[in-house]
Amino acid sequence: MAQDDTHDPARRSWVDSANDPACDFPIQNLPYGAFSTGDGAVRIGVAIGEAILDLTALEAVGLVRPGGETAVFDQGVLNPFMALGPEVWTETRRQIAGLLEAGVEERLRAPLEAALVPQAAAQMHLPVFVRSYTDFYASKEHATNVGSMFRDPENALTPNWLHIPIGYNGRASTVVVSGTAIRRPLGQLKGPEDDAPRLGASARLDIELELGALVGTGNPMGQPVSTAEAYEMIFGYVLLNDWSARDIQVWEYQPLGPFQAKAFGTSISPWVVTRDALEPYRCPTPPRERELLPYLQEATPNNFDIRLEIDLAPAGGTPVTVSRTNYRGMYYSAAQQLTHHALSGCAMGPGDLLGSGTISGESPESCGSLLEMTWNGRDPLDLGGEKRGFLQDGDSVTLRGWCEGAYRIGFGSCEGTVLPAPEAPGAPGD
Amino acid sequence: MAQDDTHDPARRSWVDSANDPACDFPIQNLPYGAFSTGDGAVRIGVAIGEAILDLTALEAVGLVRPGGETAVFDQGVLNPFMALGPEVWTETRRQIAGLLEAGVEERLRAPLEAALVPQAAAQMHLPVFVRSYTDFYASKEHATNVGSMFRDPENALTPNWLHIPIGYNGRASTVVVSGTAIRRPLGQLKGPEDDAPRLGASARLDIELELGALVGTGNPMGQPVSTAEAYEMIFGYVLLNDWSARDIQVWEYQPLGPFQAKAFGTSISPWVVTRDALEPYRCPTPPRERELLPYLQEATPNNFDIRLEIDLAPAGGTPVTVSRTNYRGMYYSAAQQLTHHALSGCAMGPGDLLGSGTISGESPESCGSLLEMTWNGRDPLDLGGEKRGFLQDGDSVTLRGWCEGAYRIGFGSCEGTVLPAPEAPGAPGD
Repeated sequence: MAQDDTHDPARRSWVDSANDPACDFPIQNLPYGAFSTGDGAVRIGVAIGEAILDLTALEAVGLVRPGGETAVFDQGVLNPFMALGPEVWTETRRQIAGLLEAGVEERLRAPLEAALVPQAAAQMHLPVFVRSYTDFYASKEHATNVGSMFRDPENALTPNWLHIPIGYNGRASTVVVSGTAIRRPLGQLKGPEDDAPRLGASARLDIELELGALVGTGNPMGQPVSTAEAYEMIFGYVLLNDWSARDIQVWEYQPLGPFQAKAFGTSISPWVVTRDALEPYRCPTPPRERELLPYLQEATPNNFDIRLEIDLAPAGGTPVTVSRTNYRGMYYSAAQQLTHHALSGCAMGPGDLLGSGTISGESPESCGSLLEMTWNGRDPLDLGGEKRGFLQDGDSVTLRGWCEGAYRIGFGSCEGTVLPAPEAPGAPGD
Repeated sequence: MAQDDTHDPARRSWVDSANDPACDFPIQNLPYGAFSTGDGAVRIGVAIGEAILDLTALEAVGLVRPGGETAVFDQGVLNPFMALGPEVWTETRRQIAGLLEAGVEERLRAPLEAALVPQAAAQMHLPVFVRSYTDFYASKEHATNVGSMFRDPENALTPNWLHIPIGYNGRASTVVVSGTAIRRPLGQLKGPEDDAPRLGASARLDIELELGALVGTGNPMGQPVSTAEAYEMIFGYVLLNDWSARDIQVWEYQPLGPFQAKAFGTSISPWVVTRDALEPYRCPTPPRERELLPYLQEATPNNFDIRLEIDLAPAGGTPVTVSRTNYRGMYYSAAQQLTHHALSGCAMGPGDLLGSGTISGESPESCGSLLEMTWNGRDPLDLGGEKRGFLQDGDSVTLRGWCEGAYRIGFGSCEGTVLPAPEAPGAPGD
């Protein structure tokens, strides 16, 4: 794909904070989100430096109008805009960059400044209506680690793993925006020596560092897509924390896969970094160990070079960076995952969220879950005195991600704090 | 729960066809659906005999008004009405029964007759926006049969099965209304002796006879519910055919469960039979083989006695009834499934669809899938000359269900015809 001027590293914004090289949101980024201020109404905006450009306001006065006659920024979610398709996404991005660049026409400065909101004064909301959430399993290192612990170290990867982008349907109703507290789940727990399960709060609450791909345009039921089409169908990416209860998972997951161990909460970052903004950071997937079937092959580099970190902080404590990794090592790209998802004729559409799978590198310090970092709790992390095998109530987890190059494309952060488990539901007659 | 006059067997309707004892939709039933006629606008209605009472029209003129100031029958789906909760459902049912009974006030007859549409003149639509689809596995006979074929006949049931209502998240975007054709899925196929998978059309396309429970009211994230609460949260039930590709399933399903083998289509019947209408047919689940944890125990009989049949017809051929079974044998009720679903804190809400799992009895003629009836194709069915191990292109499948007692509560039917597979997506450069 040809570079356009939205990727010009020399471009500067009249919003000064966007020109700081350490800023996640320079004029080359322009991620979309949903926010509210005092009146509570949820609006669509673009992050620029330390501010938000209010697109709902600009659309109302006609300064941006991607949907023509039909407003698309007045619903509080990005789905109507996403449904307009890749050409409109690219053109709108070009327009917004033009409005934010240092050389914008003087007559536009007043209405644009009126539409600028400090991020510090805004509350962020879920940027899309998540129509569905599918979680994949695309890190070979993660699949190998989990297979070694839960199944057989000699055959850690299932035979299909090098052929299929393995995934399963997750739960969309509990996808929440960064900052939403996560309640420790109740579940059935059973140790290997126990005769029967008991009801209790998960004692092995974990995180999963992932990247989420948001599908923008869909395919009709019964009509598969190619990897090239799938790449274009993806609107953008977010950080994703797929909170997981390992003790619930190990007892429930045979034969139909993870269910309540993953259903209680999935956090995403509030800013959707567009696929357009990530273009300069495209890179290929790692070399194939088995040749893929033709429908999964890619003629272009569809992965991205994205640095990722996990911070963990006990209640009131100082955050410790417990993992540093990179998305580029994922064996399957989101385009391959989407292609496989639609292969059966499964209809995909705006607001479908695809989790990459836990992003793990080769060392414990580059893993995306505590399960792997601590080898199922055997080697607890040291958080400046406090030890952690798994999460305790009050712990806060923060994911961060960014691309480094001629400029920085940041994802901001994805944060969540653990609340104590709720009361168990009563038996009849209680 | 106290009986009310909506269950009075002596009650008759001024819609004559509703008084035929063989009719699925007497005045004691009153299932809800979404339909359109010539102008294409999707409306909400109640089935009565061979007709539909147009609730969208009656709401507009004020003859029914469950939402008070807010219209709930003008959205083309039942979700806004379902969100109003059990007391409103019961009261609305009582009102509609009053409008349809033989002794209705004379002054109402003209506006009511004007709102009556022949079912033969209506096209049916998906009655709800399916927010999510979860498929369970509650027939012990089915789980035992599948476990015997795909895993180990000596340990067919996984150890968790007698403790957990096992389920997994399915794909909501391909839930379709009865009458929608189903395209045979493409997928990765690999025989046990093959070195690598190939891409192809499923050769083991199957059906799964299930009952679908539609959640009407929800629970907030982080807040579990009791079985008594869960029972009340369910608005109604539909017939459900969970089309399945057994050859895709067997290669893909480890370790994270069924995915594309089930994603290409799920059919539901157009009429939602309310939980209120099923009250006289409540029955207990079968005796427990292991005591359930208290949160799953039930103080009331929460299953239903529903007779079920499957018809199979080759293209242009005569339908043959290939299975006769009953929902009453399911080991877990929908209330137990919903309680377990929410246990982790998973938020449930209007439009969540819970599939019961394939409904199978002890004999092949009472099984809910061809996989079981033919023992994975070994013993093909005889359809008056043609043999069937699995479905062929052009085959039509029809599910039927009804309760028998002082009157008949019918579900109508759920039909689907198999279309040939689509073309495979091209490799790069094709």
